[in-house]
Amino acid sequence: MNFNVLKKDVNSSARTGIIKTDHGEIQTPIFIPIGTHGAVKTVTPAELKSVKTQIILGNTYHLYLRPGTELINAAGGLHNFMGWDLPILTDSGGFQVFSLARLNKITDEGVEFQSHLDGSRHFLTPEKSMEIQRNLGADIIMAFDECPPGDADIVTIGNAVKRTKIWIDKCQRYLGENPSVYNWKQTMFPIVQGGVFPELRKLSAEEMIPFAKCGIAIGGLAVGEEKSAMFKMIELMDELLPKDQPRYLMGVGTPTDLIQAVRRGVDMFDCVIPTRNGRNGQLFTSFGKVNIRNKKYKFDFNQIDGNCNCETCSNFTRSYIRHLFNINEVLGLRLATIHNLHYYLNLMELMRSHIQEGDFQNWSQNYLNNLTKDS
Amino acid sequence: MNFNVLKKDVNSSARTGIIKTDHGEIQTPIFIPIGTHGAVKTVTPAELKSVKTQIILGNTYHLYLRPGTELINAAGGLHNFMGWDLPILTDSGGFQVFSLARLNKITDEGVEFQSHLDGSRHFLTPEKSMEIQRNLGADIIMAFDECPPGDADIVTIGNAVKRTKIWIDKCQRYLGENPSVYNWKQTMFPIVQGGVFPELRKLSAEEMIPFAKCGIAIGGLAVGEEKSAMFKMIELMDELLPKDQPRYLMGVGTPTDLIQAVRRGVDMFDCVIPTRNGRNGQLFTSFGKVNIRNKKYKFDFNQIDGNCNCETCSNFTRSYIRHLFNINEVLGLRLATIHNLHYYLNLMELMRSHIQEGDFQNWSQNYLNNLTKDS
Repeated sequence: MNFNVLKKDVNSSARTGIIKTDHGEIQTPIFIPIGTHGAVKTVTPAELKSVKTQIILGNTYHLYLRPGTELINAAGGLHNFMGWDLPILTDSGGFQVFSLARLNKITDEGVEFQSHLDGSRHFLTPEKSMEIQRNLGADIIMAFDECPPGDADIVTIGNAVKRTKIWIDKCQRYLGENPSVYNWKQTMFPIVQGGVFPELRKLSAEEMIPFAKCGIAIGGLAVGEEKSAMFKMIELMDELLPKDQPRYLMGVGTPTDLIQAVRRGVDMFDCVIPTRNGRNGQLFTSFGKVNIRNKKYKFDFNQIDGNCNCETCSNFTRSYIRHLFNINEVLGLRLATIHNLHYYLNLMELMRSHIQEGDFQNWSQNYLNNLTKDS
Repeated sequence: MNFNVLKKDVNSSARTGIIKTDHGEIQTPIFIPIGTHGAVKTVTPAELKSVKTQIILGNTYHLYLRPGTELINAAGGLHNFMGWDLPILTDSGGFQVFSLARLNKITDEGVEFQSHLDGSRHFLTPEKSMEIQRNLGADIIMAFDECPPGDADIVTIGNAVKRTKIWIDKCQRYLGENPSVYNWKQTMFPIVQGGVFPELRKLSAEEMIPFAKCGIAIGGLAVGEEKSAMFKMIELMDELLPKDQPRYLMGVGTPTDLIQAVRRGVDMFDCVIPTRNGRNGQLFTSFGKVNIRNKKYKFDFNQIDGNCNCETCSNFTRSYIRHLFNINEVLGLRLATIHNLHYYLNLMELMRSHIQEGDFQNWSQNYLNNLTKDS
């Protein structure tokens, strides 16, 4: 895998680039849709490509529980299993263990937890996370890190930074001793922790940078802290992280967040917002959010966004989509998902083209002005 | 609307034909997927076309309750509302009133019932059914009939035949006084009732035939009676119904049923089986039914049916589809629906081509021999 910066914005840290993987190229800045269980909920790989998805994310925790790595390995890896031939990134499983499972014990060895599905006991270690990710076969795999909540105190965050360093040593060792089981390369991204404490962020960045071959992640943000604190940390990361590697801001965010983070030098994003909020009837547009369940759309025969040319907007009205949500029809979930993913991926494409053309600063300010406040 | 018979089979009553409507042609024999609430569950109009759907069915009862005819009328009819520009058939609402709602009273005037959704009281009359169907704007609309259960006695069925005649007079009168509200034609099909009693079927056929302009339906079958009794009634209908009009067997059936009924002169079918059973994980193939939830498919990386070229079979394995059902992922429902609809519509196309080529009898016998018993 390698990364080339194509163009740097003169007024901000925004830049365009290309990541080359054995499953194809990724143009940055990019957004990564979430394919929790080996499927981006409600949509097919062909539809993902039609909205210009370049890379998807698979959740190690969910895939480990169902269907399990034995099956995915037998299928020839996650790409083959789900019929997706472009790049995949898998997370380490840690975040879901911390947020979904019942935690029993965290030690320097790993995390003992009980499945949120059936209460069964599991022990996820750095080595186990790497073993699972080797079997899933993603192009980009994530180091096993400890991610405390956004309101954790400095001691807790400091311990998480310390443990994240202990764990990445184990990840690195495992990967060195156990090469990819498939005939393509897998690149591990280390994850910088440190909460909203600059000194801890700095320490974690120093500790993680040596592990970064072609990409590094900013973790532990968008977990409950203030937005302003998040952006300060991203600015700090922009100063400290290598400029010749892609920076991946995990779990972020709203359209506004994406633009603000690209300005601060972020190249990659993943987030459940477009897909999950879509399934709740919240649609993103160039003028802000639309809650399609709202009664005011009952007789509204316009498309969701007059500026949008996605499959949903090209074929269906607000009135019809509202009706589908009202009757709990699955087709509504699909149409909302397609629209929102198209919106997010189109937004990234717009950012790339305006960085390329040199008018990113003006364009992005106008774009943000047109959005409603909470978008 | 008009109908032309293209080719008659020499060994059976099977025939091919073309129905011309203001929304395009329908090649018969044809299967009509069910679009209950203005959507064939889980799939888009484009996908319906990709599996060669030529006409869909909308349920008057469901559409009347949600979203209501005021909205569909404001949208310019059901075609516009849901984005489907090929022919539509709507049922009369009667069958759902009898099977889903709480019935309060049936008189010669109509049916008083309470909504299965909220218990609200409604009175569905022949005139009201026609008014709703005028607003929905389907190309083919169905007379309001009384459809008793399959185990009803001869007196009950006789009364239903009598009432169906009283009601169709009212339907006819309403339609004469209230032409289509859209700029396309709507043709009403009368429905022959009579249960499994030849004399009542004969009487009902005689009463209904004068109302048939271009199509007549066989109702009150597949409602719990024996299969052999159903086929006897279809044979009787084959003798009695006009040969120059399409015959529509309502609510039927399995792949075997379709072949057996085409042999007996039926041209049109609708049924929930391919869509509903698909959503339950039951997939139809050229060798019989597959329950994709079965554990034996866990490591089965073959396509559902090696002879099938649908989007599902072209892209996904049994193992993956089984996984989607296991995690209750909506994409599984879609892939199953697409496969089953493709199977049904492809089966109709196979029948048409073998009738056309003159080897329908041999071909259909072979085909039936390859199916498992309950398909």
